[in-house]
Amino acid sequence: MTVAISRRSAVEPFHAMDVLAEANRLKQNGCPIISMAVGQPSDPAPEAVRHAAVEAAREGRIGYTDALGLTGLREAIAAHYLDHYGLAVPPGRVVVTTGSSAAFNLSFLAMFDAGDQVAITAPGYPAYRNILSALGIEVVEISLHGDGYLSADLLAETHAKTPFKGLLFASPANPTGSVIPADEIVRIAAVARDRGIALISDEIYHRLAFGAPDTTALSIDPDIVVINSFSKYYCMTGWRIGWMVVPDALVRPIERIQQSLYISAPELSQRAAIRAFDATGELDKVKARYAASRAMLMERLPALGLRIAAPMDGAFYAYCDVSAWTNDSMGFARRMIAETHVAATPGLDFDTVEGHRTMRFSYAGETGAMAEAMDRIGRWLGV
Amino acid sequence: MTVAISRRSAVEPFHAMDVLAEANRLKQNGCPIISMAVGQPSDPAPEAVRHAAVEAAREGRIGYTDALGLTGLREAIAAHYLDHYGLAVPPGRVVVTTGSSAAFNLSFLAMFDAGDQVAITAPGYPAYRNILSALGIEVVEISLHGDGYLSADLLAETHAKTPFKGLLFASPANPTGSVIPADEIVRIAAVARDRGIALISDEIYHRLAFGAPDTTALSIDPDIVVINSFSKYYCMTGWRIGWMVVPDALVRPIERIQQSLYISAPELSQRAAIRAFDATGELDKVKARYAASRAMLMERLPALGLRIAAPMDGAFYAYCDVSAWTNDSMGFARRMIAETHVAATPGLDFDTVEGHRTMRFSYAGETGAMAEAMDRIGRWLGV
Repeated sequence: MTVAISRRSAVEPFHAMDVLAEANRLKQNGCPIISMAVGQPSDPAPEAVRHAAVEAAREGRIGYTDALGLTGLREAIAAHYLDHYGLAVPPGRVVVTTGSSAAFNLSFLAMFDAGDQVAITAPGYPAYRNILSALGIEVVEISLHGDGYLSADLLAETHAKTPFKGLLFASPANPTGSVIPADEIVRIAAVARDRGIALISDEIYHRLAFGAPDTTALSIDPDIVVINSFSKYYCMTGWRIGWMVVPDALVRPIERIQQSLYISAPELSQRAAIRAFDATGELDKVKARYAASRAMLMERLPALGLRIAAPMDGAFYAYCDVSAWTNDSMGFARRMIAETHVAATPGLDFDTVEGHRTMRFSYAGETGAMAEAMDRIGRWLGV
Repeated sequence: MTVAISRRSAVEPFHAMDVLAEANRLKQNGCPIISMAVGQPSDPAPEAVRHAAVEAAREGRIGYTDALGLTGLREAIAAHYLDHYGLAVPPGRVVVTTGSSAAFNLSFLAMFDAGDQVAITAPGYPAYRNILSALGIEVVEISLHGDGYLSADLLAETHAKTPFKGLLFASPANPTGSVIPADEIVRIAAVARDRGIALISDEIYHRLAFGAPDTTALSIDPDIVVINSFSKYYCMTGWRIGWMVVPDALVRPIERIQQSLYISAPELSQRAAIRAFDATGELDKVKARYAASRAMLMERLPALGLRIAAPMDGAFYAYCDVSAWTNDSMGFARRMIAETHVAATPGLDFDTVEGHRTMRFSYAGETGAMAEAMDRIGRWLGV
């Protein structure tokens, strides 16, 4: 029988997920793995969320919801914009998605055709590039040279050379943790408006900035597509539940695509997520632990010769320049997991050009375990 | 700000989902809606599944899994092939997916490029056509003229005219409920082998046939991609959990695409689904109720002038020719929901050419409610 394999299936692997699979394999064999590879909180979902999930699971009638999501959840998300940002958002513009993963896929499909050009930053979240490629959209990478954040000037300069149709940007950003200042986001939106660039703002690391308050791009222009999720601040990665806020004109196209590609997001996760916004007290304690881990790593990583390559202003990542030790971050990550049982992600995931000399360490895990990881790496490197 | 809207976002709506949204809106307003629109069991997930879900929700550490799925679930699915079909399937070829929806998207992306031609049957599940179109794959529709099933002869004849690269077929089929006899599936596979057609077999309605035992296409050739789900027989629609069994050569391409497009299927649903295969006793009772509903509808629908257009051999659908009453099934469905509060799906979802004179009635709900629906339709039509 013929086995068809497409050309587009040759997307890059998401190396962090390969490292996760290897770490899980080693853990099953009894190895004392410390994972700093995946952007995943070690805390469980908040108590109120777990309680709602238990109730839903006990009852067990977990069905398809409207493609756009449960009314109650769409309303809770809209209310969150008023509570957290002081911004009125109509629930009708909220789309509940199967994690931000689905939100990226839905927005790309609804906004861009094969052959269109869309810009992202490098370093950046690898799924952006991989999903865009799989959908036949041409990726324009704006290099930040491993540090800092996207500026309006750099955007204008790149667009003058390559007049791309859309731009996806993130603040706080993965993998650097860098935050774009509020006034710079305003300038980015102005450049986009002048040049007719459609904007997508990835705000999945909101509520996880350590300096300035969050700025949602929605407060600048309601036509910017905003993507967010319950995975990070709300500690709900494996529940696969996120959302987007979209301009009126995109609601129905996205609803149609969602009906066929996803039907709806998992109902149990939707019912549980409604309670997540009440859990700020509990979740801010988790964030306080990230702050302690961050302070520890800002001291210990450079002392190991792992220079911090970008300001750790938000999210829960340290993006390190490992060129003092290697120019092959992939091999370095493989040896590190095999010899120290510490898992971290090679930079090639985030930057295909310069990622051979960088690595990302996630500090969403337990502070004590991460201190132990630093000890192990120190012994391994002989520092 | 520029709002980008792609040409490919103009996919057809999945009308059943629009009907669901309308039914939910009416229900919230207190209307006594009886839904026969969506292929969704009214029973909750089996007790053992609910119990496992409660345990997982209580603990609350619901995280990303390996992209291919939890080892325990992949092993349970492989064991199911031995138990149910007497077929040894290596767990390494099982991919856990976010419902069969994700399995379709993953298989299409991994197997076909934009511009490739893939054949499906009409009538058929509308998401096939919509996902293929969104991905730039050209859809070749093989018309069954509203009744019967795909035959090897019809396949060969169509392929001689349009040499498509892949074929997706389903048995039992949605919306007709028709089952392809085992020896005909063997002949279809032989034509595919001769002509170099890659095959995808949608087996989501297995364990829901009322005549012959299930034949998995895997028993004919391990290179056929098989898609299945916990949604239908296992009563787990809203859990968004399904699977595929793929040839060795497709495992890694699908893993790579899954890493970026989905990360992983929802972990809570994965942990719960492991227990679904133990619940056959409970689920066979649900199937017995479908059998009773089926017998009732086989009598009552024709008596209402709603001719059953295809043999109801499996799944839980009656596909009716409504041309005695209308040539506008969409308007008929709209009036029926407004005036009788009974929701069913217009045939245009399943057959863009001939669906104006057909409708699909799902009998996955409660038998009593469906008898009441028949009463209401009878009064409405004055029969």
